[in-house]
Amino acid sequence: MRRAIALANASVERGGGPFGAVIVKDGEVIAEGSNSVTLNTDPTAHAEVTAIREACRKLGTFHLEDCTIYTSCEPCPMCLGAIYWAGIKRIYYGNTRKDAADIDFADDFIYEELARPLDERRLPIRPLLRDEALESFRRWTAKSDRVEY
Amino acid sequence: MRRAIALANASVERGGGPFGAVIVKDGEVIAEGSNSVTLNTDPTAHAEVTAIREACRKLGTFHLEDCTIYTSCEPCPMCLGAIYWAGIKRIYYGNTRKDAADIDFADDFIYEELARPLDERRLPIRPLLRDEALESFRRWTAKSDRVEY
Repeated sequence: MRRAIALANASVERGGGPFGAVIVKDGEVIAEGSNSVTLNTDPTAHAEVTAIREACRKLGTFHLEDCTIYTSCEPCPMCLGAIYWAGIKRIYYGNTRKDAADIDFADDFIYEELARPLDERRLPIRPLLRDEALESFRRWTAKSDRVEY
Repeated sequence: MRRAIALANASVERGGGPFGAVIVKDGEVIAEGSNSVTLNTDPTAHAEVTAIREACRKLGTFHLEDCTIYTSCEPCPMCLGAIYWAGIKRIYYGNTRKDAADIDFADDFIYEELARPLDERRLPIRPLLRDEALESFRRWTAKSDRVEY
């Protein structure tokens, strides 16, 4: 965790957001990341997502089983989703989503939005052409050599 | 939406997941994406995240204001978080999270997990060293030339 916090501090110095993360496997740090949304003009370049991508690149896998992530702030819904998809087994966090809200980051707002029914959200989300979209799911199910995850 | 569905179908053919997305600005498609988690060994390479990255790269920005995303399936929490962070203004989706659950994708499970209090989740998440982590937030707040988003 102290390394994740050091990455967050270094990120602030460099002009990035105040967030850092490290991924550990078998007691060894296998990947690090810090927030480079504005530096890389990539809204998905949060510390955790960056560290997950790096770990998967290094290990040549899309599943980080037996890995732990240490992140300097409670993951936002995007990063927490990425952590679940990656199959990470344990999370430690420093600052909370409320701490992040106190310095004007939207994490807490996004958590609230996701918990709302679709028709009560501030960002409009509407269904369209589900009957046609289901075709790709049927093709997936029919594909005998599909790689699941 | 028909283009997003076509991307999903093409992705299945290529060995990727059955998901496609396009981002539209001023009536023009500015970016496309499809699910390449297994092809690129990147658990964050969902259709929407891939399309957002591509749109931001093309426009040289981390904010996709006045953009609409058409995605062949309701976004998972990771992708929905990315859509909020990107500032996209409207979402249209084809398949639902329940349709995705029916073909064994974890979207619906992750939504349920995120809505639970931290200490009731299946994936353990624990606080650690908050006092030290807050230092990076203080440094951020004290930085007069910080770039917010």
